Amino acid sequence: MASEHMTTLKNLAALLPEGAVITDSDRMEAYRRDRAADPHAGTPIAVVRATSTADVQAVVRFAAATGTPVVPRGAGSGLSGGATAIDGGIVLSLERMRDISVDPATRIATVQPGAFNAEVKAAAAEHGLWYPPDPSSFEFCSIGGNVATNAGGLCCVKYGVTTDYVLGMTVVLADGRAVTLGGPRIKDVAGLSLTKLFVGSEGTLGVITEVQLRLVPAQRTPTTLVALFPSLTNATDAVLAITRTMRPSMLELMDRICINAAEDQLRMGLDRGAEAMLLVQSDESPDQAATEIAAIEQLCNQHEASECYSTDDADEGAAFIVARRIAISSLEKQGALLHEDVGVPIPRLSDLVTGIAEIGARNDVTIAVIAHAGDGNTHPLVVLDPTDQAQHARAHVAYGEVMDLAISLSGTITGEHGVGRLKQPWLGDYLGPDVLELNHRIKQALDPQGILNPGVVLAADPPTE
Amino acid sequence: MASEHMTTLKNLAALLPEGAVITDSDRMEAYRRDRAADPHAGTPIAVVRATSTADVQAVVRFAAATGTPVVPRGAGSGLSGGATAIDGGIVLSLERMRDISVDPATRIATVQPGAFNAEVKAAAAEHGLWYPPDPSSFEFCSIGGNVATNAGGLCCVKYGVTTDYVLGMTVVLADGRAVTLGGPRIKDVAGLSLTKLFVGSEGTLGVITEVQLRLVPAQRTPTTLVALFPSLTNATDAVLAITRTMRPSMLELMDRICINAAEDQLRMGLDRGAEAMLLVQSDESPDQAATEIAAIEQLCNQHEASECYSTDDADEGAAFIVARRIAISSLEKQGALLHEDVGVPIPRLSDLVTGIAEIGARNDVTIAVIAHAGDGNTHPLVVLDPTDQAQHARAHVAYGEVMDLAISLSGTITGEHGVGRLKQPWLGDYLGPDVLELNHRIKQALDPQGILNPGVVLAADPPTE
Repeated sequence: MASEHMTTLKNLAALLPEGAVITDSDRMEAYRRDRAADPHAGTPIAVVRATSTADVQAVVRFAAATGTPVVPRGAGSGLSGGATAIDGGIVLSLERMRDISVDPATRIATVQPGAFNAEVKAAAAEHGLWYPPDPSSFEFCSIGGNVATNAGGLCCVKYGVTTDYVLGMTVVLADGRAVTLGGPRIKDVAGLSLTKLFVGSEGTLGVITEVQLRLVPAQRTPTTLVALFPSLTNATDAVLAITRTMRPSMLELMDRICINAAEDQLRMGLDRGAEAMLLVQSDESPDQAATEIAAIEQLCNQHEASECYSTDDADEGAAFIVARRIAISSLEKQGALLHEDVGVPIPRLSDLVTGIAEIGARNDVTIAVIAHAGDGNTHPLVVLDPTDQAQHARAHVAYGEVMDLAISLSGTITGEHGVGRLKQPWLGDYLGPDVLELNHRIKQALDPQGILNPGVVLAADPPTE
Repeated sequence: MASEHMTTLKNLAALLPEGAVITDSDRMEAYRRDRAADPHAGTPIAVVRATSTADVQAVVRFAAATGTPVVPRGAGSGLSGGATAIDGGIVLSLERMRDISVDPATRIATVQPGAFNAEVKAAAAEHGLWYPPDPSSFEFCSIGGNVATNAGGLCCVKYGVTTDYVLGMTVVLADGRAVTLGGPRIKDVAGLSLTKLFVGSEGTLGVITEVQLRLVPAQRTPTTLVALFPSLTNATDAVLAITRTMRPSMLELMDRICINAAEDQLRMGLDRGAEAMLLVQSDESPDQAATEIAAIEQLCNQHEASECYSTDDADEGAAFIVARRIAISSLEKQGALLHEDVGVPIPRLSDLVTGIAEIGARNDVTIAVIAHAGDGNTHPLVVLDPTDQAQHARAHVAYGEVMDLAISLSGTITGEHGVGRLKQPWLGDYLGPDVLELNHRIKQALDPQGILNPGVVLAADPPTE
């Protein structure tokens, strides 16, 4: 079997550019896991670094002919294990496909999947334009991964998520055909919404090899408010009060652990004693932004804020956002992280953060909380010492309990990271059997052999009916 | 066969509220056509006016058991024949399902499909909230139809289309099961994007019985600019200049025929000699709106505007919008209309309007043009005398040629009205065989019997492979 594969792999390599196929196990090691660092990652038979749609087609045709699983991979920054390698599969890396072209007349960026989010933003900015979606990892996550997971970020509370900016794509289907969905048309209802279906499909329905992204005029310099609170629920109550009537361009929450982790790194004078911090921005025109931020400050004070500080200085505002963005990497210095991504209707945020604290205490594990609070989307981070087996087991129990809690609060098990392999066991609890079966029906219709990222989002073997 | 149906229909009627099932042909007549007024509309065996999800399930279960086609119907305002009755089918009217409830804490409206768009807007406004999508027909089109067609409107140029506001739905599947997709969570990537797939599916994948719509804070009073031009291409060139750098909250175009039709009705002093009028709004804060409108006025003047007039008076601005909205009903007084809905990338707008004029001249038919110009989405309206058979034939030739033209300009055959029955023959030309086949595969996976609105969007008999 192995030698048969080697023979056919050579046939595949002959169709691809020199050096595209990697089979050396040392070199493949870097492609076995994404940022979720799944200890159960498999060993692939090859890593293929595609340079074009045609390369991707060759790989998928090979996979279809041989029944080989294909794991598409962007920058490997995923947090749910959506790019975890499978034993006997091919890791199809899109890292070499990085072209970006911006058409300012249509305000559209045509982007290959390996380009980083930050590179798209930079290319747009050269034309006075802006690509809004901004995952915290924007400097090192790929657009292909963003589209595959329908990634969110900090500005989404006002500007929406990735799917809101995807106008079209080229996608290689499970039989190796390449098709173009959508295109440079702002409104288009001709046929079923296939573009939207492929966004968020995590490589399970096809391999995206090019996307057309809608750009908008550059954002105005925002005004920034930082508010500190003596309890998490004071902060989440303030969030609810703000979102009832206003639409700030950012509304983030950090708990005491995250504040301290950021302060450890940055020494910028954040209040280490505060239990929660809200980071709020308004990007309305200056007068309007000042009015909006003042109103939000008043709401924070009504909810017992211990301190509020606002600034219309761009650099000073950006420094607070750095504190927000750096929190996760700062925490990674304290241990391994299990990245949660649960979301709830905003009125349930207080119940969620209270319940998470209880789960942490009950299981004797540290759970930090950082949140896109204005979207109700939280990132509880279970911090663990990977060498402590007992703690590791407790951390995984807590990880599952957080998802169970979110479901009990009418929430979702993943707001923006994707289901990947790590959350797949919980998807049925969240969706229920009928909707889970609908998901399988779509998967079956588009990938009847089950070769595209099997085990991601959906179990590789569908439930029998 | 007919008597067999009558027996089973009686069984169905026994499951439904008194009077839900109509079989009287006089009373059914009002349910045979939508606003597209398809002369080839069929004769249904029954019209069922559902009052609940359970009623819809009973109808769909009956249809599945008997192989009866079901045509879901909202307010009957569709312009592509998506609710045209089929011989031997059931028209499933949702007109009685009109509940609306607004939760200001989550900023979500839960709405039954028969409620009118305007009613949702009004219910939201009671809480200081706003449901943006605004088809010209908003006073008499249903939310169910809006979701089924992914309807657009005038404010979409800044605020997006219906799909951007649909967070969740209850949908009755082809086997009669009711499922809930999505829900009151702003971000949710758990599972495939099924909510988005059902939006725009025109009743071919399921029957939507409830939707959860995202609301936003009330819009500010906009500032309005009206600009008149000596040629259509002056106006479309101005549109391109505006959209390169700005994002007004409305950017509409009317040609000379539409200006005159509105003026016939309203006598408000519009310049009957102008070849084109742009209607532009900015809803930024007052100072910023004044700056934006002044910049747009300058661009209009650079493109030979003969007159520009701006106002920050809300009533005066609203009067111009009435002129825009009334144009279609004014034209309907001049004859029957074939409603086009083609869209192109904005740099091709000039080629599109020029080409449409040529098509009108060549076929000796009047084609008026009204457009959501900022989205590149135009509504060429072929005006015809329904008693003139020869003109009728020429009008249909022109109708098809406009779609062919749009396709040749990288455009779409429908931007917001839907494919319906009328545009179905062109869908394959637009999508190409591979993407058309993908559409059929999804349809087959979710409605294997083909009972849900057969012949709408896709041909009832899929192409053989």
